[in-house]
Amino acid sequence: MLGRLNHVAIAVPDLAAAVAVYRNTLGARVTEPQALPDHGVTVVFIELGNTKIELLEPLGADSTIAGFLVKNPAGGMHHVCYEVDDILATRDQLKAAGTRILGDGEPKIGAHGKPVLFLHPKDFQGTLVELEQV
Amino acid sequence: MLGRLNHVAIAVPDLAAAVAVYRNTLGARVTEPQALPDHGVTVVFIELGNTKIELLEPLGADSTIAGFLVKNPAGGMHHVCYEVDDILATRDQLKAAGTRILGDGEPKIGAHGKPVLFLHPKDFQGTLVELEQV
Repeated sequence: MLGRLNHVAIAVPDLAAAVAVYRNTLGARVTEPQALPDHGVTVVFIELGNTKIELLEPLGADSTIAGFLVKNPAGGMHHVCYEVDDILATRDQLKAAGTRILGDGEPKIGAHGKPVLFLHPKDFQGTLVELEQV
Repeated sequence: MLGRLNHVAIAVPDLAAAVAVYRNTLGARVTEPQALPDHGVTVVFIELGNTKIELLEPLGADSTIAGFLVKNPAGGMHHVCYEVDDILATRDQLKAAGTRILGDGEPKIGAHGKPVLFLHPKDFQGTLVELEQV
């Protein structure tokens, strides 16, 4: 059921500083910052040819990545996002296998305008997994 | 200078258990385990179509990932690996920009039989970065 790697997300405390590193030091193509108040983050994407890196900076008081940055003040790898064809069918298969779905278990609309779900890192060797229907 | 994302590496305490999750629960294609005594790890690759996930289990007493698993006993995302055309030219550009290269700064032969270098996570928002010449 697992499709392509849509992106790897890295949480950063200072998006402008991180963009400078990727754009200037590593010579990468970086998109313009996009504020996503519903998700509590501002994002940019680093376009790598075969996939993307998503840099996430907290936005607002209730950012979902604020806690992560308290534990990892310098930033760090936050999650991986895999593409799936049918997010509801995948969710139901995973639930039947005992995988914990985060939140209320219903897909939300993600940064790309497509339905996404997050899976519990305890079920994936400490890695937070996002699924995106493409 | 940054090319494709070659792989995302995830350190795991129990490779067989992790392979079962990716193969059975997520329905992914997983390669057979490969012991790399020189790197202190046993690896498998999860083939995603556009890139790979590398699962790393410690091998031997001096594994480079042993310390990571002490801090993260359940496992977790360990590094990202970007492809470059010319690893020595890239290294020299990065050094000139102030980036710290790990070890003695000379490329080693990695899991794919190609030259690799690791860059200091403090220079990349807490993310350990591997470069591989392809």
